[in-house]
Amino acid sequence: MVRRFEIKVPCTSSNIGPGFDVVGLSLSLYLTLSVTVDAQLKNTAPTLRYTGEGASEAPLDAYKNLTTRTALYVLRCAGISSFPLGVSIDVNNEVPFGRGLGSSGAAVVAGLLLGDALGELRLPKERLLDHALMIERHPDNVTAALIGGFVGSYLLDLSPEDTTAKAVPLSEVLPEYPPDAGAEWGKDPPAPPHGIGHYIRFGWAPEIDVIAIIPQFEVSTAKARSALPDSYSKADLIFNLQRLAVLTTALARSPPDQGLIFQAMQDRVHQPYRKHLIPGLPRILASVTPSTHPGLLGICLSGAGPTILALASTSRPNQQAIADTICHEFSKEQITCHVQFLHVTTEGATCTEQSP
Amino acid sequence: MVRRFEIKVPCTSSNIGPGFDVVGLSLSLYLTLSVTVDAQLKNTAPTLRYTGEGASEAPLDAYKNLTTRTALYVLRCAGISSFPLGVSIDVNNEVPFGRGLGSSGAAVVAGLLLGDALGELRLPKERLLDHALMIERHPDNVTAALIGGFVGSYLLDLSPEDTTAKAVPLSEVLPEYPPDAGAEWGKDPPAPPHGIGHYIRFGWAPEIDVIAIIPQFEVSTAKARSALPDSYSKADLIFNLQRLAVLTTALARSPPDQGLIFQAMQDRVHQPYRKHLIPGLPRILASVTPSTHPGLLGICLSGAGPTILALASTSRPNQQAIADTICHEFSKEQITCHVQFLHVTTEGATCTEQSP
Repeated sequence: MVRRFEIKVPCTSSNIGPGFDVVGLSLSLYLTLSVTVDAQLKNTAPTLRYTGEGASEAPLDAYKNLTTRTALYVLRCAGISSFPLGVSIDVNNEVPFGRGLGSSGAAVVAGLLLGDALGELRLPKERLLDHALMIERHPDNVTAALIGGFVGSYLLDLSPEDTTAKAVPLSEVLPEYPPDAGAEWGKDPPAPPHGIGHYIRFGWAPEIDVIAIIPQFEVSTAKARSALPDSYSKADLIFNLQRLAVLTTALARSPPDQGLIFQAMQDRVHQPYRKHLIPGLPRILASVTPSTHPGLLGICLSGAGPTILALASTSRPNQQAIADTICHEFSKEQITCHVQFLHVTTEGATCTEQSP
Repeated sequence: MVRRFEIKVPCTSSNIGPGFDVVGLSLSLYLTLSVTVDAQLKNTAPTLRYTGEGASEAPLDAYKNLTTRTALYVLRCAGISSFPLGVSIDVNNEVPFGRGLGSSGAAVVAGLLLGDALGELRLPKERLLDHALMIERHPDNVTAALIGGFVGSYLLDLSPEDTTAKAVPLSEVLPEYPPDAGAEWGKDPPAPPHGIGHYIRFGWAPEIDVIAIIPQFEVSTAKARSALPDSYSKADLIFNLQRLAVLTTALARSPPDQGLIFQAMQDRVHQPYRKHLIPGLPRILASVTPSTHPGLLGICLSGAGPTILALASTSRPNQQAIADTICHEFSKEQITCHVQFLHVTTEGATCTEQSP
């Protein structure tokens, strides 16, 4: 019997202004896996084909690819030491790499669902999240990609006795595997503790769309993290706490309050420190406002950047004008951009089995 | 013609764990003013009578009392330089002083409504809030007392040109007036800029009641503020951002999620630094949990303390047991407590005119 299923994972944005390492938003660009399992084929490692964004970079070795390695981790935690025979995977990816749109988180989440489906484990999403948090210690993107919508999350403080949590099998950014990574590498991994992540889904007003302005260069998450200071003034801490508290509820209110949202999206924790990584950023954040661009609700860096996210009311002419201005600002820095008009997805990652 | 009206202002709690200087919660203990205006009596300064909490401390000189001074500020901003003739005010106060229940904020908000009523100004609450923020630069308590319910707020960054904002007529804590404070002191004050405070009302699940355990000693807001560091680690900043974002939405969900709320009420920004001001605090925060006390949702310092706030499901036997345990912990430190079983008020401050 041949099994066929499709896994579809949305891209995600995180931070959304003041919510550094807190909020994630799932958006309508997808990483899609079309999977076939035909035991007659007898290949032990899944064969991978990859089209779309990152096709020239993504490893096609199933022991090095982040998605298949994550799947193997899920299988091994369930006591299944290797992939089933005869797996082949067609990946189609719409999520650009290294632009702050959660491509790495989407790859991990696709791997969770892949492992769950290959092992026929039927793990609840809460349990899949535990696995994700063993791989990716920042829960914002993975939680939003798995659950869908606009989500706030955190990793619980793990108790000091919980030594498993330290032995993380993968690393937090797209990992470099040892040259000999293969079927034996990473066997008998530590299974995740239960319930290590907490999350809540906020509301999202249906009148709010999202425009992603994606500059044609990458910012590494590690580099963007190292740009941040180790400590913050009490004033900056309070500034972000106040705005984030207002923002999560303000974005759920219908109709949206433009002035309130724009002010509540201001940030002093990460964006000011990342401006040297993204030429033109301070000018863009300062010059595109609700008064210059009616319909604009807020503007921020997507994740660690370089993508700029603009929240705007659902009127396409306004959205186009906002995108044009931001692209024009980037062009002054000799940077070209790609624009995506997106909406917030409510569903999160899905796996759909096709009846034989 | 004799006018009579009643002003009723709820007490408030702030911080609620991670929400330092952000959230305020209005609760069912009240500061009530019964006001009579009889121009035939010809007294130029209002006469004040005061019963209840703080009766032995509150100044009865209308030029020194915080409520009447605030009223005079509102009147003067509207171009009315003095109180009307023949005002007499009976104050009844249920809000204990210096315990973290917003007694100072309630006095300010009562003064806003008093000035508005005396001058028949009919200012909207948004405009009254501007006046409050000229007197009290921390918006959490005054906003909750004025608007009611569970509120997140912040003061906008005032532009550098806005010199009026620096010339604050009163001070941020219960002020010491100069010995010669009288009818002439504080004339021609700067009127507040418009819209200097932003706020949003969160939801509040009807199943959640509030228990206030009020120790019989005071903590000065100034002293509690000076106990805090000037800077925080990035890890502590993110810890509070994550929990606050989850908390404001979690408290609105019905039925409440006990485990989620309890974890989301953890704080690293103010409570750890105030434990030496409140004997027994670390033990209380650590030992009263949902597993030791079913029905408990969370526990925190109310404002700057020393009052402990426990959120609990609406079952009185559970609430009594929680209060008893906390009182018992305080008794080990030779501190006696007073307990109030409260609910969240939805209305905020009111002024009711009696028909003649």
